[in-house]
Amino acid sequence: MAERGLIAAIREMLGPAGPDVLVGSGDDAAVVRPRGLQVTSVDTQAEGVHFDRVTHGPDDIGHKAMAAALSDLAAMGARPGEAYISLALPADVEEADALELARGLTAEAEQHGATVVGGDVIAAATLVVGVTVVGWLGEGERPVRRDGARPGDLVGVTGRLGGSGAGLRSLRASAGNEEAERAHRRPVPRLEAGRALAGAGASAMIDLSDGLATDAGHVAAASDVAIALHLDALPLAAGVTPEFAATAGEDYELLFCLAPERWDDAAAAAGVELTRLGRVSEGAGVVLLGPGGIQVEGLRGYEHG
Amino acid sequence: MAERGLIAAIREMLGPAGPDVLVGSGDDAAVVRPRGLQVTSVDTQAEGVHFDRVTHGPDDIGHKAMAAALSDLAAMGARPGEAYISLALPADVEEADALELARGLTAEAEQHGATVVGGDVIAAATLVVGVTVVGWLGEGERPVRRDGARPGDLVGVTGRLGGSGAGLRSLRASAGNEEAERAHRRPVPRLEAGRALAGAGASAMIDLSDGLATDAGHVAAASDVAIALHLDALPLAAGVTPEFAATAGEDYELLFCLAPERWDDAAAAAGVELTRLGRVSEGAGVVLLGPGGIQVEGLRGYEHG
Repeated sequence: MAERGLIAAIREMLGPAGPDVLVGSGDDAAVVRPRGLQVTSVDTQAEGVHFDRVTHGPDDIGHKAMAAALSDLAAMGARPGEAYISLALPADVEEADALELARGLTAEAEQHGATVVGGDVIAAATLVVGVTVVGWLGEGERPVRRDGARPGDLVGVTGRLGGSGAGLRSLRASAGNEEAERAHRRPVPRLEAGRALAGAGASAMIDLSDGLATDAGHVAAASDVAIALHLDALPLAAGVTPEFAATAGEDYELLFCLAPERWDDAAAAAGVELTRLGRVSEGAGVVLLGPGGIQVEGLRGYEHG
Repeated sequence: MAERGLIAAIREMLGPAGPDVLVGSGDDAAVVRPRGLQVTSVDTQAEGVHFDRVTHGPDDIGHKAMAAALSDLAAMGARPGEAYISLALPADVEEADALELARGLTAEAEQHGATVVGGDVIAAATLVVGVTVVGWLGEGERPVRRDGARPGDLVGVTGRLGGSGAGLRSLRASAGNEEAERAHRRPVPRLEAGRALAGAGASAMIDLSDGLATDAGHVAAASDVAIALHLDALPLAAGVTPEFAATAGEDYELLFCLAPERWDDAAAAAGVELTRLGRVSEGAGVVLLGPGGIQVEGLRGYEHG
C-alpha cells in the first residue's frame, strides 16, 4: 500500500480546520492557537488486543479508537480541540479499508467537535491505531483530576454499565446481541456530561475503560480515600448482572465524585442519566457492597480483549 | 508483562515537570499551560520497518523514535515542550528492555529540553513506538512551513548527508562501520539550528527523513517552485557518494530555503555547518545537477528499512 497516496486521500477527507489551526496536515507539524489550558491524552489500540478485524469493521475500529481517546478529555471536563492519528498498517489491509478506518476516526472526531489536523501512516506487521487528542479548558474552567475525592462525597456514574462487555461476549459467541455489540463497537464518549459535571463541581472523575471496580480503585488511590459502591444500585445494560457490570470494561461512562449538595445541579446539567452508586469515606480502596450492605469479595477486573 | 507496573516504573523515571505542567502523567490526560503557538507532530516507528531488534538496542529504539519526532519540531523552528509516548509491546519484550526503551525516549527528550508528561502502554503483536511532541513558538516567532520557498532563494542543508544510510548498510552487512551505525541508531534532531534558521528568516524548511531528493520535492511541490541541487556540493558523511547521500534517508538534517542576503546571519547563528546546495527558481520539481551542471536522472528515493 502506498503510504503517501493514503495520506493524501486521508487529508482530502478532513473537514476545514477552524480559524485556530494555523498550519494543518501536510507540513512537518501542525500549528494551533491555544484556547486556554491544553489537555492532552494518547490512546493506542492494537488488533488482537482491543479489537479484532473479524468482529470489528474498519469504520468500527476507527470509531472506537477515537471515542476512547476523546473519553479521556471527557473525564477531565475539557472541550475537544484537535486530534492527531497514527496508523500502523499491515500489508494485508486494503487501501479501501484503511480509508474506511480513517473515516471512522475523522467522523467520530467531528461528531464531538474535534478536528483531525495531523498524523502519521506507517507500515507494520500488526494493525495499531494511535490517537492523540488535545482539548482545551477556557477561562474559569478547571481540570477534574482523579485525586480530588473527599470523604462525604457522593459517587455517581453516567449511563449504563456492562453493555460493552456483553457485546464483546456476544461477538465472541456469535450470539447476535446487536444492541450490546453496538455498545462494544461504537462507544460514546461522554464529553458534554464531563463538562457539565466539571461545571457542577465534581471533585474527581475518571472514564470507565478498565471497569468500574478497577477505575474506582484508581480514584481511591489517587485521592487517598475509600470508595464504597452498592452493586444493587448499578445502572445495568440489558441482560447483565451487577457483578458483570462492575468488572466489565470499555463502557466509557464517567465515574465521578461530588459533594451531596451539588448532585441536583449536576443531574440537571449532565444531559444523561446519573446514578448514585455510593460514598467516599476515610480509608483506602474500593468496597463493593451486595444486598444488605454485605461486602462482596473476589470480583476481578477486566482484561482487554 | 504487567502494563500497570511498567507504567508506574516509567513514571518514576520522568524528571520533575516544569511549572507549566499542571497535571502530569497519572491522570486521564495531562494539562499544560501554553507558551505561545502550539506546534504538534506525531511520529510512529515499527519493528521490521524503522528499526530491528537485532541491530538496535532498546535504548537506541527509544532514542531514534524521540529524535525523529523532535526533528519535526526543529523543521518548524519550534522550541520543544512536552512529549507523549505510546508503547505497543509484544509479549517477548522483557520488562527490563521495555524500561530501557522508555529510558531512551525520556533521555533524548530531556537532552533537548522536552518533558515526557504522558502516554500509553499496551500489548500488541509487534513492537510499535509512537511519539507525540508538542513545541511552542513564542511572541514574535513564526512557524517555518514547507510552502514559503521563493525564486531566488538559496537552498541549504545542515550537517552531513548519507551517514544514516551508510550505517544501515553497515548494520545489514555486519560491516562494523561504527561511526555510521551510530548516525543511523542515534540521529540528532537539529533543534537549535532550526530555531536559528527560523530567526534568520528561512522561507521554507523540512527535516530530511525520506532523503534529500524526496524531501526537497516536498518543499518544491508545497511552494510551487523548482529546486536545483548540485550533487558535487553535498556535504558528505564519510565513505558515501553524492548519489547515495542525495537519496539515503533518516539523516534528520534540515533542508532550508533562504534569501541570499540572509545566508551569513543564518550561518553565524546556526551552531552547525551550513552548506549551500543550490537555488530556488520558477518551475516545478527537483533537478539534481552533476559535474558541469548536467542533470542527473534516475535517482530513486529512500525506502525505510
